[in-house]
Parts: sequence; C-alpha cells; structure tokens
Amino acid sequence: MNWWKIIGGIFGGAVILAIGLLIGHFGIKKETEIKTEINSPEWVKDISKDVDEEFIKEFMKEVNNKNIEENLRILSKKPHMATTSADEELVKLILTQWNDPVIGLDSAKEERYDVYLSFPDAENPNNVKVLTPQGNANFTSQRAESNLTADQNDPDIVQPYVAFAPKGSAKGKLVYANEGKVSDFQELVAKSIDLRGTIAIVRYGGTGRVNKAINAAEFGVVGVVIYTDPKDINDGKADASETYPNSWYMPPSGVERGSFKENFGDQLTPYYPAKSFTYRINETQIKGLSPIPAQPIGFEDAKTLICELGGPAAPENWQGSLGCVYNLGPGFSQSSRFNNSDVQVNVYNNRTIKSSANVMGLIRGAVEPDRYVLYGNHRDSWVHGAIDPSSGTAVMLEITRVLGAMLKQGKWRPRRSIIFGSWGAEEFGLIGSTEFAEEYYSKLRDRTTAYINVDISVFASDTLRAQGTPPAQSVIFAASKQVNTPLHPSLTVYDNWKKHSNRTSIQHGIIPQLGTLGSGSDYAPFLHYLGITCMDLAYTYDRSKSKARIYPAYHTAFDTFDYAAKHIDPGFLSHQTVARTAGNVLLRLSDSLILPLGVKDYVETLEQYYNTAENNFRDKLQQNKISLEPLKNAINKYKTACDALEKTIKELNSTDEMPLKIRMINDQLMLLERAFINHFAFPDKLYYSHVIWASRTSSVVTFPGLADAYQLAVTTNQKDNWDQVHHQLTIVIQAIENAASTLEIAATI
Amino acid sequence: MNWWKIIGGIFGGAVILAIGLLIGHFGIKKETEIKTEINSPEWVKDISKDVDEEFIKEFMKEVNNKNIEENLRILSKKPHMATTSADEELVKLILTQWNDPVIGLDSAKEERYDVYLSFPDAENPNNVKVLTPQGNANFTSQRAESNLTADQNDPDIVQPYVAFAPKGSAKGKLVYANEGKVSDFQELVAKSIDLRGTIAIVRYGGTGRVNKAINAAEFGVVGVVIYTDPKDINDGKADASETYPNSWYMPPSGVERGSFKENFGDQLTPYYPAKSFTYRINETQIKGLSPIPAQPIGFEDAKTLICELGGPAAPENWQGSLGCVYNLGPGFSQSSRFNNSDVQVNVYNNRTIKSSANVMGLIRGAVEPDRYVLYGNHRDSWVHGAIDPSSGTAVMLEITRVLGAMLKQGKWRPRRSIIFGSWGAEEFGLIGSTEFAEEYYSKLRDRTTAYINVDISVFASDTLRAQGTPPAQSVIFAASKQVNTPLHPSLTVYDNWKKHSNRTSIQHGIIPQLGTLGSGSDYAPFLHYLGITCMDLAYTYDRSKSKARIYPAYHTAFDTFDYAAKHIDPGFLSHQTVARTAGNVLLRLSDSLILPLGVKDYVETLEQYYNTAENNFRDKLQQNKISLEPLKNAINKYKTACDALEKTIKELNSTDEMPLKIRMINDQLMLLERAFINHFAFPDKLYYSHVIWASRTSSVVTFPGLADAYQLAVTTNQKDNWDQVHHQLTIVIQAIENAASTLEIAATI
Repeated sequence: MNWWKIIGGIFGGAVILAIGLLIGHFGIKKETEIKTEINSPEWVKDISKDVDEEFIKEFMKEVNNKNIEENLRILSKKPHMATTSADEELVKLILTQWNDPVIGLDSAKEERYDVYLSFPDAENPNNVKVLTPQGNANFTSQRAESNLTADQNDPDIVQPYVAFAPKGSAKGKLVYANEGKVSDFQELVAKSIDLRGTIAIVRYGGTGRVNKAINAAEFGVVGVVIYTDPKDINDGKADASETYPNSWYMPPSGVERGSFKENFGDQLTPYYPAKSFTYRINETQIKGLSPIPAQPIGFEDAKTLICELGGPAAPENWQGSLGCVYNLGPGFSQSSRFNNSDVQVNVYNNRTIKSSANVMGLIRGAVEPDRYVLYGNHRDSWVHGAIDPSSGTAVMLEITRVLGAMLKQGKWRPRRSIIFGSWGAEEFGLIGSTEFAEEYYSKLRDRTTAYINVDISVFASDTLRAQGTPPAQSVIFAASKQVNTPLHPSLTVYDNWKKHSNRTSIQHGIIPQLGTLGSGSDYAPFLHYLGITCMDLAYTYDRSKSKARIYPAYHTAFDTFDYAAKHIDPGFLSHQTVARTAGNVLLRLSDSLILPLGVKDYVETLEQYYNTAENNFRDKLQQNKISLEPLKNAINKYKTACDALEKTIKELNSTDEMPLKIRMINDQLMLLERAFINHFAFPDKLYYSHVIWASRTSSVVTFPGLADAYQLAVTTNQKDNWDQVHHQLTIVIQAIENAASTLEIAATI
Repeated sequence: MNWWKIIGGIFGGAVILAIGLLIGHFGIKKETEIKTEINSPEWVKDISKDVDEEFIKEFMKEVNNKNIEENLRILSKKPHMATTSADEELVKLILTQWNDPVIGLDSAKEERYDVYLSFPDAENPNNVKVLTPQGNANFTSQRAESNLTADQNDPDIVQPYVAFAPKGSAKGKLVYANEGKVSDFQELVAKSIDLRGTIAIVRYGGTGRVNKAINAAEFGVVGVVIYTDPKDINDGKADASETYPNSWYMPPSGVERGSFKENFGDQLTPYYPAKSFTYRINETQIKGLSPIPAQPIGFEDAKTLICELGGPAAPENWQGSLGCVYNLGPGFSQSSRFNNSDVQVNVYNNRTIKSSANVMGLIRGAVEPDRYVLYGNHRDSWVHGAIDPSSGTAVMLEITRVLGAMLKQGKWRPRRSIIFGSWGAEEFGLIGSTEFAEEYYSKLRDRTTAYINVDISVFASDTLRAQGTPPAQSVIFAASKQVNTPLHPSLTVYDNWKKHSNRTSIQHGIIPQLGTLGSGSDYAPFLHYLGITCMDLAYTYDRSKSKARIYPAYHTAFDTFDYAAKHIDPGFLSHQTVARTAGNVLLRLSDSLILPLGVKDYVETLEQYYNTAENNFRDKLQQNKISLEPLKNAINKYKTACDALEKTIKELNSTDEMPLKIRMINDQLMLLERAFINHFAFPDKLYYSHVIWASRTSSVVTFPGLADAYQLAVTTNQKDNWDQVHHQLTIVIQAIENAASTLEIAATI
C-alpha cells in the first residue's frame, strides 16, 4: 500500500467520520433530548418572566396628551350626575371603548345596584331667605350660579344643594359658627350665645360636611347654611375680576355641592350589595345623616348674610375674606337692613332609590389570572365635573386605550389580571365601589394585589401627590423615577415631588412624602373593609403658592372643560404625566415576577405610631397598669419577619426558582395588609376594619382605636373605659402579630 | 483498484461513518441540549407529582395496633386533667416523640395560653345533701366513684364536679325536671308546680349541659343536680353485676363530669389568644355560664333521691331506668324517710387562670409549604381519659410515628405542610384549639386546606362514623374504600359504614351518611370562626344494638385503659382502622396534586336546606313579601360554577399543566368554605360566622340564621322581626353568591 493511499484513506476516513459526527450530532434526535422536551413544557419560560422594562417605555411613549384632552372634552360635555341620562351615556361610551375590537379589553360589562340617593326638587328650588318680622323675604339666595361661560347655561345643571340634607324649613336668628366643629359651637356657648333655635352659617373646611350639621343640631341649632370662604379657596380673592374665567379661583356665585352623610356605601344596605333581593334597613335606622335642613350658598350670598350680622366680633382666626368684620350674631345688627329679621333655610330634597351602574373592564392574566390588580375611578360628577372626576376618567381611558391596543395586537398580556372600574355614584358616598367590594367580598379579598385610584388626576400642574398605605410606596417611587415632569424635561416626577414634599426616612433617607389615605375617594371600601393595599395618585399645586383647600371650581358649575384646559392643565401634559405614572405603577403590579410591594415600609409607620403612643399615653397607661411593651415586641417581630423575607427575595434566582415559591412570596406580600383587618375591632364604625387606618376622633396620630379609647378614658377616668384602652391595645398587638406571622417563613408554627 | 479494496474501502468507510454517527450523537453535548437543561429545572418533576398510592399502602401497612395499644397504656396511666402535672408530663412525652431524630417530625414546640378554668376544692368536696327540717343531713352524695379496678384509687382523680358551676349553697324542695329543657320546665309549670326556690334534678341528654341550669334559673330554680340515667347510657341496665367491669356499661357510682359553659374558647379573651398581654373581660361579663350551683351525681345516688320523690308521677317519656316510678315532686313523698326534707347543693368550685399548653408538630411541605393540612386532638381528660381523648391521641402518635420515620429516612415529604396539634383544655370548652385559631387567624385562614379531628377515635368497634362539611365527603369516601374492617377482612370500611348508616344522594346514589359538625370538639373554631373544611373521624357502635347516648364510661373514673382494652376495642384493631383511614385522608389532602375536596357536594346541602325552607316558610314569607327565588338562583349559580370547575379539573393534563393553574384551582377549592364566613352575620353568637353551619335554636333544619329569625318572627309577628328574616335571607344569598364566585373562572368580573 502506498503512503498516499494510506494518507488518502486516513483523510477520507476522517472526512467520513466528520460527516458521521455532524449527522450524528445534529441530524438525529436523541431520546434523552425528546424526553427533556417533554419535561420542559412551554410554561416554564412564561412562568418566570419578569416585568418588561421595554414594554413599559413603549407604553409611556404611547400615552398621548391630545387623546386625554379629547377624552376630557367628551366626558365633561354634559353635567353627568349619578344616574342621570348623561351619566348613562357615559356608561355606554366607556363600554363601547372597552369592548372595542381594536383598542378594547378582553371583556367589559356594566353592573347595576339600586342605591339610595338624594336630589333637589326642580319645581321647588332650595333656598336661604331673610324674612322680615312680617314674614317678607328681603333676601333670597341665588337659584343658580352665574352664567360666565356658556357652560353654566346648561339646563341639566343641578341647582345648588347638599345631598341627603332632610326636606324641611327651619327659621331662626343667624349665627356665624366658623367651621361648625364641636369646638366652634362650644366657643359660641362660652360667649353666652344661646344657640337654641338658631340658624348657623358655617364655612367649608375643618371637619366633614355632615359633621357641621350633626354638631350644630346637638347645640340646638335648627338649620345650617354652608358656604366656601374666599380665604379658604381663593387665597382671599373675592372680586369677580380676580376669579374664573379670569383665573382658576371660584367666582362669587360658585356653590360647592356635596353629600351630607357620614358613612360610605349605600345607606340602606350596609355590608351587602344593593341588589333587588337585598334587605334594606328602614330609613330611620340610617346613621350619620343630618338631622336638620342644610343648604349651600355662594360666597356672594354669604357675604350678604355674614356682613350684616350683629353681636360680638368673631375671633381672629374665624375671620374670612368677605371684606367685612365677621360678627357672631345671633341675628343681624341693629344698623342692618335685616335688623330683627330671621333667616330661613328651605330644603325640598327627595331621597330616592335609583339604578346606578359600575362599568367593569377586564384584561385576563396570562400566568396568574386569579391575581387581580384593580384600577378605578368614579364616573359621576356634580355638574360637568371636568376635573372631578373626568380628569381621572380621561386618564383611565387613555391607559386602557394603549394597553387594549397592545393586547389586541398580541404584543402583550399581563402576568396577572387587571380589572378596571368606572364607579357610579361616588359623589353620594363612594357607593359604586362599596357595592362592588360587598358583592365580591370573598374573591376580591383573596385575590387582589392592590387597588390604584386616580380620581381627580390633576388638581394643578406643579407636582405629583400620592397617598397610599406603606407597601405602595416603593412601586410609586419606582414609577415616578421613570417619568419626566412636563415642564422640566430633565427633572423626574420623583425628584420634583421630593422637592415639593419630603420627609426623612430612617430606612431610605430623604424621600418624597407619601400621604395617608382617609376615606375621600373610592379606595375607602378596598382599604378599610377588605384590607387591600391602596393608593391614590394625582398632580397637584405647590402649597407654597396657594393655600386653597382644593382646586377652587370643585363641585361647582365652573368645573368645566374650559376651566381645565385654561387654568388647570393647558396642553394636558400633567394629565399625560399622571397617566404615565399610574400606568407604570399598574404594569409593575401586573407584570412583576415578585410583587413590588414594600411591606417593610410599614415598619416606619408602626414605629412612629408606637413612639407617639408612648410619648402621649405612657404615664397614664402605667398608672392603669397597661404596658406598651408587648406592642413594641410585636413591632420588632414584624421587623424581623420583613428582614428575613427581604433576604429570601434577594437570594431568589428568578430564572431557576420554583414558581410556587414565587407565588408563596407574592401571597405573603399581597395578604400582608389583610392581616390588619379585624371585623370585630370597631363594632360601631361601619366598614372600618383596618386596625392601622380606621377613622380616628382623637388628634393624636397613632393607632386609631387606641387613640380614641385613650381619649375617652382620660376624659371619664372610668375603669371600664381604661379596660377598653387595654382591649384596643390588644387588638393592635394581635393585628401586628398576625402581620408578622403572614411574612414569616410559611411552614412555621 | 481491486473490487475487494473498493468493497473494503466502502465497508471501512461505513464503519468509520457509523462510529462518527455514534460519537456525534451520544458523545458530544449539543448546545440546544444544554439550553434545554437550563430550561427544565429540577422542580418541573416535583411540581406535578400527584399522591403516591404505593406510599399510602405502605403507610397503612406500617400502622400498628400494638403500638397504639402501648401509646394508650402510657397516655391513660394517670388522670391528666388540663394543666395538672400529669397533663404536663404528656406535653413532654409528645414533644419528645415529635422531636425524635428517628421517628420525629421536622419540628415541634409547645404554645402556652393563660386560660380561665374551674376546679373543685380538694379540702371542701362538693356534695348534694338531704337535710331534715332540723338541718341534719340524712343523705350525702358519694365523694368519689367506687374503686372497682385499681384505677379508681388514684389520688389524682378529680372529685365529681361540673366545671364553671358557681361556688355556693342552694337549698330547696327537690323537683324532677327530666332533661332540663325549656319545654320540660314549662310542662312542670303547666302542672302547677311552683319551681321558685326548688332544686331541680335533671338527667344528661336532650340539651347542652349548661342550658339545663340556665333554663332552670329562668324558672326560679336555685340549684341543679345532674345525673346520667341508665336508660340513656346503659340501655336500661342499672345493676352493678351488669356494669363495668362486667360489661362496658356505667357502674352505679359513675359520675359524668363536664363543663357548664355555653361558649367555647377562653371565656375572658374572646377573639384574642389568652396571652399575658391580652385584655381580659371582667368575670361578670362572661355570657353563658350557669347562674346557680350545679353538681353531678351517679345514678345510684340519683336513685336515692328520685325514687323518694312525692307529687304526681312524671310523664311516661320522662321515666327512666332507676327501678321506680319517677314522681315530679316538689319534695319527697310523705312515706319517704326524707319527708319534709330539703335538698342542698353545695359547690366549692374555684375559677382560676392557669397555663395550658398546645403541642404543635410540623412536617414541612416540599412543593407548597404555605399550604397546611391540620390534624389534631385534645390531650386533656377528665380522669384517665383512655377513650376520651387518649384513644385519639394514641392514633395520632402512631400516624406521626409512621410518617416521621418515612420522613427521617428520606422516603417521603408531603407536597403541602402538615401541622399536628395536641390541644390543651378542650374539656373546659375547646380552649387550646380556639386560642390557636385566634392567635394565627390570618395565616390559618389564608393557608389551611382542611382540618382533621380525631378526638375519641373508638367509641366502639362496629363501624366508621364520620362527620364533616360536604367538601370532606369525597376524601373520606376515597380513604375508607382503601381500608378493610378489622372483623371482616373482605369488607371495606366504606361498605361496612354504608351498611350501618346510609342515605340516597341525588348525585351519588346510596352512600354512607356523613354526619354534620356541631361544636362538640376542637374542629369548632376552625369551622365556625375560620371557615375551614373540617371533619371528625371515629369508630362507633351499631345503634341498632345500643341506644347509649355515648360510650358509658364517658367522663367518669371508669374510662381507663382496662375499660378500653376489654370492652371497647380488644386487640386495638378498630384503633388501627381509624389510624389507617385518618392517615389515608391526611396523605390525600397533603399529597394530591388537586385537592380532594368535593365542593359540588355542597349542592345537596344547599338544595335540601332550600327545600326545607320553602316547605316550612314559604306561605308566611310570601305574606310578608319575602321571596325565596333569589336564594334558588344563587344555589343554581353555585351549581353551575361547580360543574364548570369539575369540567376544568377533568380536562387537566396533570403532567403538562401550568403549576399555577393547578394552584389556582386548589385555591378555589381551599377557599370555597371561607366564602360562607360572615363575621357580621350573627353579632350575638360568639365565634359563629359560618352561614351554613352556625348554631340554631329552631328545630327546622335549614340555614340557621334564617330558621331562627323565622321562628322569632312567626312568634311575635312584629314588622322588625320579619325585617330580620329578610336580613338573614340576604346574608345566606350573599354567602352562596360569594361561594359561586370563588369557584367561577378566576378572571371574571
């Protein structure tokens, strides 16, 4: 054999071997390979997918200010008070968009409740009169707001009234009672003013609307007139030339409407959805309504009344900006043209049951359809409601448009389900959202990761204002760091917010101030009754520039598209900013592998509450043999559990982690807030079950049940009241122990 | 070139190619293969693992009757009433076994609560005396049970008493009041018997213990004597020769102890764990305790009293088996040696706070550590408590021994976590279990799949007796079909059970009768307060052979190991059967991929309740304009949701299914029962929050709130009582709507 043949043979063999190797390696499927494929189902990839930052960027880019402007124009074209035909038109409009094949959601529907509302009588307008001793009216309050832009001419504008104020006429000497707080009436009594049989005129602010009337009635007052003082709403400006349409300030004829009721939800069906089959309590059993007639007026009318009052001058801090010295009364001054006249409050409101709709929209979750992120706002207004609530709805519709389009194009589906709610009848006391929370109590409680509320989305264009429970802080921070402010493109919403409102956190250093949630909008039933982590987002004004209690056209016939476009957010860039921020938050909550809820941020609240309780209550508690030590221990336990969970999350290897471990952690984060719910804690407070955030009468900012029980006990110094302090302390400790237990390693006893 | 060279070359080439193919295929790792391995993590296999039937068989084989016998011998050696030193010894014993390195669990610990108990005074034994008009005692009840076996000689046996009966002496004419029901006292009054100032002697049965005293007090009775009639417990046999140790029947000196309290849990800390920091209500605020002294006696003593009574003869169905005609009194007959004598009840019980321990054992779940299966029994007895509760504890310890050994050998780890509880102070009103449920409210509510209670495991050796909520039925059936009866090896526990007690189910045909749960053992807080699917398993007697109210040595000094071994379960094969059945249930709940909870089985209960309500209430409801139609609709909705979920489960491809889909379904099954919980439903009933199973006064077996409200309304015919009927109907409808909603496709609105 020749060498070349040998070499050729070796070479040829090598080539053949190589071909064999190649075919063998790539051409023939291995059995183990086939088996591995069976073992590695499609879902393995989906299940460990985290939030897509590129998608969030794309979403934010897509959010369009012009669309929001257009939404707002349509939404606020007509006055759309709850259950009116214009409200029903908006139900259809939202349903149409959410069911749209190109930009709609997976599904949408309306859900109706028969709810207890209150309307004025169109035939017999409410009014406030000054009556001569002979019974002749020498003053009658204005029937409607002045027609300053074409908008106030709409025949569907509801006349000024406060809902649920009882029908009736009340007559008596007029008294100026400041804000109608208990302390205000006490001060009048201290000044030897006999309040029995009087009519009190009070300004908005300082306490809840209906409280003014409830307080007044307790002092023998028979009727209430309520108005908005230019000092509180207009930074003192009272002249027509300085107010809308010349500025954002409330015109002299503007009347703030509102509901005079203490409790939220449908008043006849507490704890149960107001369906046709539902038992309704008797109207007389409703608690927290005004026992006496009440009527709101504009400050122009208020000036006529207050500036004519006799009696001693009101204290300095009771004085307002009507351009005269406010006297207390009772009755008008001798030099007044109203001398010896009484004031009469005439209310012809009718209480009635009407069908109100929520519109619900759904995007089904791809991986965890049984976990919900809720996003909502009410739809009903008092008049045109451009800012309240349509600025929020305009934003919601733009968010759903962008997400709906992505969804329909197959570009995106969230990990978790997203539920959008357009709530009905919020202005009558958060009714739509409350009925929804009642109807789906079980599944909302078990499955909801968080609720995002965007009601008024833009009060003004200066800075973000966010409220929420502590776990919401981190996701709001994360989102607001990714959005730029409209006016300073190099400044993030986060940094701008921090500039306007900040605090020093032990854990995080200087950070923006996250506000706390009361019960002012539709988050209330989700927070207080269900124990869901909630937040409320908006753009607002620089408090160093304006002290206005709220944006000045609030609940008046001047809250129009024109007002919004000219004075609140020209160009709608703040609306866009809120849409981007809220949408970013929404996407992080729906798509993150690990829920972006910072449960450890509760530690600061708990410790702050603890320190306040210790500083304010310790001595008297010790005297009554009640120790705060177990509360401190519970908080420390909570802190330890947070640290351990944080460590577990940090050490996760998300691509290789058991999906049920991720779910376990997410359930801990989601259900944390639920541990603070105790339905037995406050038997006298309807719906309030959240031990940390329930309503509070005491001015000491600490655990509300403890603060109120303490206040009563120090007042009475009765043994059983001190027992209730101990009882409330036990409730707090047990709630925090349960919270800690929720975060601890799951398989522990 | 030669042909052979060519052929050789081709052949050689082919060999080389083949080698190449083989090396290429098997020898070199593909990149895609490596990638696939990354995509197919270890957990994919674990996560879809279903219950291992072979392992269940092995478990059942390992369960040993001799071990149970030995457990029982040790557990019942000493009287071990709650918080006594013998009870504390058992705490240590159980802890030692559960912490054992060879047969123990993952971890075990004791949890202590400071609970309100009641004990007699050793220095001043309680008694019942007959006093001559001169005040001399011519009869005093026996201080202790007769020493029939060595066991009754134990100095630690607690003297006969009923716990929580108040300290005091009461004296008066004796009256026989049958079972002490309200109707019994009414009948006495109807017979013109003046009950004021009398002492009532009543027999056990017919109503709860303390109710007899509460009812009596309402009729003016000042003291209660309670005894067990041989008719009720001994099938009429009263002679010593026919009773233990000669048979299983109660000896004449036997006294049934018990607690006289209406509500379960620690009486001073309702809704909160009885920790050192916990607020305690004032003793006077406790509801449901006896207002008058009460003392139990044996039927030998009862005979002395009852057979001497004067007055008219008691009605036929009030007559018992003491061997004389029962007269009603008041007072003894003129011919009696006790003529003109009063009866005096002397009670020296002390109420006191003591530390009681639960022993908790844990096996960590491999896949879903945050899902719990609870298994428990109480540890405390009244005397030796061989049957009550040690027969259950003996079984529990054998189950934990077998599972612990498998665990330590690395042969098994459950999918879900298993928590074992040895509860303290059950005899004083389910205290240990209730405090545990209170302390861990949040996480137990959110994570517990089911609670298995095995208290008295063997009442007798004839048949299984199972009680539970409907979802428990299917898993009990599945387990009982896999266990054979001890006496007929070819007969399954299921078939034998069906023979003894069955019903016709629309859905399943003839099936064994699953009993309903009241509040007789430690399942009560889990069921009524937390809404967890519960069951209680035991072996019991053939009711056609004995009418005994319960096994006759119940709560007496004769409930000993000797009694159990000779008269209840010689050979301990029934104990073994219960251990196998309960262990089988436990393993199915802990290891099944899909939770074996038959939520559809609730439909029969709901429909039966509905039909009963319709048949009994319809006419009067219609008259009061209350419609049952929405209730029917809600039940149909529930049914539809069950069918859809059942279909989804059937169509699952378990090896290839998204693990989060499995988890979603399991969460629906687990949380179904929680949807029936409404903490606002029954504000006057402590802990009772389960709308379907709450306690009921009315005899109509339907939704308890509805039944009781209806009963009141038809009695008073007051508008507000009919309103409450409508209110309770709303509560039921809403609970069923929530239940349906829990089972519906998760991503719906």
